[in-house]
Amino acid sequence: MARKFVIIGGSAAGPKAASKIRRHDQEADITIVQKGKYLSMASCGYPYFVGGVFDDQNELVATPTGVPRDPSFFASTKAVTALTETEAISIDRDRKQVALRNLATGEESSLPYDKLILTTGANPVIPRLPGMDLDGIDSLQSMEDAVRLKALVVEKKTKKAVIIGGGLIGIETCEAMELAGIEITVVEMLDQILPFLDWEMAKLVENHMRSKGVNIITGIGVAKILGTDTVSGVELTDGTVIECDHVVFSIGVRPNSKLAVEAGLKIGDRGGIAVNRFMQTSDPSIYAAGDCIEVTNLITHNKQHWPMGDAANLQGRVAAQNMVFGNVEEYEGVVGTGICKVFDFTAGGTGLSEKMARMEGYENVISVIHAAPDKPGFMGGNPIIIKMLAAKTTGRFLGMQVVGTGDASKRLAMAAMALHGKMCISHMVNLDLPYAPPFSPAIDNFIAAVHALENKWRQHMEGISTVEVKKKLDAGEPVFLLDARGPDEYETLRLGVGEHLIPLGKLRSSHDKLPEDKNTEIIAYCKISLRGYEAACYLKSIGYTCVKVMEGGIAVWPFAREK
Amino acid sequence: MARKFVIIGGSAAGPKAASKIRRHDQEADITIVQKGKYLSMASCGYPYFVGGVFDDQNELVATPTGVPRDPSFFASTKAVTALTETEAISIDRDRKQVALRNLATGEESSLPYDKLILTTGANPVIPRLPGMDLDGIDSLQSMEDAVRLKALVVEKKTKKAVIIGGGLIGIETCEAMELAGIEITVVEMLDQILPFLDWEMAKLVENHMRSKGVNIITGIGVAKILGTDTVSGVELTDGTVIECDHVVFSIGVRPNSKLAVEAGLKIGDRGGIAVNRFMQTSDPSIYAAGDCIEVTNLITHNKQHWPMGDAANLQGRVAAQNMVFGNVEEYEGVVGTGICKVFDFTAGGTGLSEKMARMEGYENVISVIHAAPDKPGFMGGNPIIIKMLAAKTTGRFLGMQVVGTGDASKRLAMAAMALHGKMCISHMVNLDLPYAPPFSPAIDNFIAAVHALENKWRQHMEGISTVEVKKKLDAGEPVFLLDARGPDEYETLRLGVGEHLIPLGKLRSSHDKLPEDKNTEIIAYCKISLRGYEAACYLKSIGYTCVKVMEGGIAVWPFAREK
Repeated sequence: MARKFVIIGGSAAGPKAASKIRRHDQEADITIVQKGKYLSMASCGYPYFVGGVFDDQNELVATPTGVPRDPSFFASTKAVTALTETEAISIDRDRKQVALRNLATGEESSLPYDKLILTTGANPVIPRLPGMDLDGIDSLQSMEDAVRLKALVVEKKTKKAVIIGGGLIGIETCEAMELAGIEITVVEMLDQILPFLDWEMAKLVENHMRSKGVNIITGIGVAKILGTDTVSGVELTDGTVIECDHVVFSIGVRPNSKLAVEAGLKIGDRGGIAVNRFMQTSDPSIYAAGDCIEVTNLITHNKQHWPMGDAANLQGRVAAQNMVFGNVEEYEGVVGTGICKVFDFTAGGTGLSEKMARMEGYENVISVIHAAPDKPGFMGGNPIIIKMLAAKTTGRFLGMQVVGTGDASKRLAMAAMALHGKMCISHMVNLDLPYAPPFSPAIDNFIAAVHALENKWRQHMEGISTVEVKKKLDAGEPVFLLDARGPDEYETLRLGVGEHLIPLGKLRSSHDKLPEDKNTEIIAYCKISLRGYEAACYLKSIGYTCVKVMEGGIAVWPFAREK
Repeated sequence: MARKFVIIGGSAAGPKAASKIRRHDQEADITIVQKGKYLSMASCGYPYFVGGVFDDQNELVATPTGVPRDPSFFASTKAVTALTETEAISIDRDRKQVALRNLATGEESSLPYDKLILTTGANPVIPRLPGMDLDGIDSLQSMEDAVRLKALVVEKKTKKAVIIGGGLIGIETCEAMELAGIEITVVEMLDQILPFLDWEMAKLVENHMRSKGVNIITGIGVAKILGTDTVSGVELTDGTVIECDHVVFSIGVRPNSKLAVEAGLKIGDRGGIAVNRFMQTSDPSIYAAGDCIEVTNLITHNKQHWPMGDAANLQGRVAAQNMVFGNVEEYEGVVGTGICKVFDFTAGGTGLSEKMARMEGYENVISVIHAAPDKPGFMGGNPIIIKMLAAKTTGRFLGMQVVGTGDASKRLAMAAMALHGKMCISHMVNLDLPYAPPFSPAIDNFIAAVHALENKWRQHMEGISTVEVKKKLDAGEPVFLLDARGPDEYETLRLGVGEHLIPLGKLRSSHDKLPEDKNTEIIAYCKISLRGYEAACYLKSIGYTCVKVMEGGIAVWPFAREK
């Protein structure tokens, strides 16, 4: 007899599971239950639809050949029944059936299953603030949200908007609306946007966004939404008022595990459905995948909520195989990779940031910041700035962040592979990568960053971050800042904090310009700090006892500069 | 007392070693001996200089800030003595000194060393053919070659050129000269260009090059160069004559190990200097790095000659550390990664091709070809075609090739990481990669290819290559070719070899269009063969016993099509 597979949720993991089940079981009855109207929405594409990268809403639900993935598509090409605008209201685990309600007619029915999968997704977090009932408050979570925001952008009625929350979706939404000519302010309660980045990396992104005209306020929360009937502004907790005619909330999502909770399934500490490596819940007949579950972080081995479209698809595929064949395929977990486009910048991270590493108990981490063009200058290279981390005792690679206008996505993908491969510094110093001038420098940025990390690890180089340098300057510490660049570079761009310009090529003949006291703390840098490093090597050799290199050089200085 | 380090060879590995030695030993005497006039040439950039991507020759030897890396640069910034136009004529290993000849003055001298490194590079292979003494015959190996070819291109006197050899350099040179308006014929003795690709992948590149106006002749050698005084044509071994006014040889390079041979150092089977993992030759005081050595292939564990600029730099860095500190750093070897830009195409490979795997004794390899856009259609994705290989018994990943107009370099870098990480199929099915619509589809092409490979490995899918399909058709075998696309797609593009169009969505209701004999061999495909795969799953379920999927679909058909 044909087996019955029921899928609750029709966004990413659900339809993927349905299709995969069908490939391996042509006899089965397969039903997708979807509360909303749409199926298989490319929800990560919403910001680009809103921003006008494309205008046909159909593209968000179409196959590569342009066929909309609607119930009739699922019926004809997959022999899968898709019940849209239908809510699963409860699961009777003893009888193995799901109670359904047709949202159009109100009619209730029940659907039996042999294997059930919950792919119920996540819900946006909407805080309780005064003024939340006003018109003009949105999030960008559903197709309906996308269509509404798109209309707003097209109608050009909105002049000023405030985006509350500076995470991935907030930043993508910001770009979309800014490009449509709306004046945007991003308000983020934390002291930086994009929390997967360390502070000094996030500040580089913020600087780039400001250069594009975006206002960014960090470290202050929202107290209330102002307005009568419709939004007229946002009041922050410090009393500041930002006028605007629209507010978009993007302060995160929570796993939608209501149905699972009510069915008595095990829930994790983060509120997501608990699953084993086979995507199986505490009830062996029920699987779960996507934004409603918790996954294992492969570095910390902790559970986390990881609401990402790519992970959801992969989990749906794993669950489907296990539902059909018995538990044959494992989903080990995530390394924590995220990326976004921010105007001309790409910003991404994988693994642990330094901040996360500390929270996870890593007291001995080495990190390095490396800046360089993504290909040779003669090929028109664009800069990327990498921050790379490893565990000091073992050399185990822990994570990487990258920002810049160059090809950051490639280096981030490499870092993700390295984390999946549990690689150490020694595995990565001599990588054989695809090198040709149109694609990378002879020593790829990724490898160059590993080299810098190795130099620190072996104590050939003592690095110091721009943030620490700034602290020392602000505290009035008597550091000797040595800019090892050329005079022409210095004229174009400089810190202007009392640094001493001694070009590397003149250093050996400029002992008279150096501090008399060999114990003076010297901090050397250049544009990207390769010359700074060479200068430091020399200074140590002539007896200076406290010589550091400002990592990443002037290219990564996130504070105001003289020029 | 200051240690003496001597470096023979000043292109990539040598200057890298010199700089690295200096960073770790500020006291040392460091001398680079360079036969030619230039130092630290970005020789991989020659084709782009010839092709007009940039016109300032200085950029090929300049630092990122535009300073030429000449002897005075090395003296002032690195305190390194660079003797250019100076030939090392012999090594006296007992006395630890190198005999030098100044090529300008003829003066001879000797230079003592504590540690010596040979970075003597490689020489182009120039065959002995009738007519090789004519004017108008070049290679693209030295800065002088590059300058001469650039002049040729700028003067616009050359109308037709023949490039002999279709490897990486030949193809890059071809693009450069073709873009300059010269009519190009590439002649390659093997049955395909770019020998690191399998035949059917190389043919896709050839088709792309032909679409750009390049003539390509494969499988035929060159018999003689024709002309009086200057070149007027090339005669092939089959008697064909190709008229031209210029010939460029690019049939490979051989390690320049003459000095090492004469000094009695151990030489490998491929003619390169033999080194251990520390880049040390058979004489512990002498190291070697770059195009003059042999390296270990990390997959086969065989030695090979691997004349690549990126590897040379890394080897120079490893050798330098070992020369300074004693043997502290290992160079394990290469996975065999190469890439080139071919007009709008990128073509690259890493690890073993199927052909190489067979030569290495892998009798049980599974391979798959996967074609898909590199990001979602609504973001303007461009196609890339991946061929991926694994060992059947263990699932160990063996290699990948990729061609297409999309972002191939990222996927190739990921594959190289996977090889360095010794990953298996099961490590790669659920990778957590940087996903956002501007960068990739929700399931990245790399992962999708792994999924296809896994499907074959688990025998969910039986694949067949386009080449095998063509063979069956040519042999008149009674196969039933099923095109599972839509009628509109069929109208735009089709094989026209007697295939049957049954759109996937109609398949379940079209049993009457299928062969009566359930043992008929059915080969299903679509644009990229995902629908082909789903069709095959269904056909098997209704009793067909011999159903295959044409991997990669019509997108990778390398032969002539009806439309």
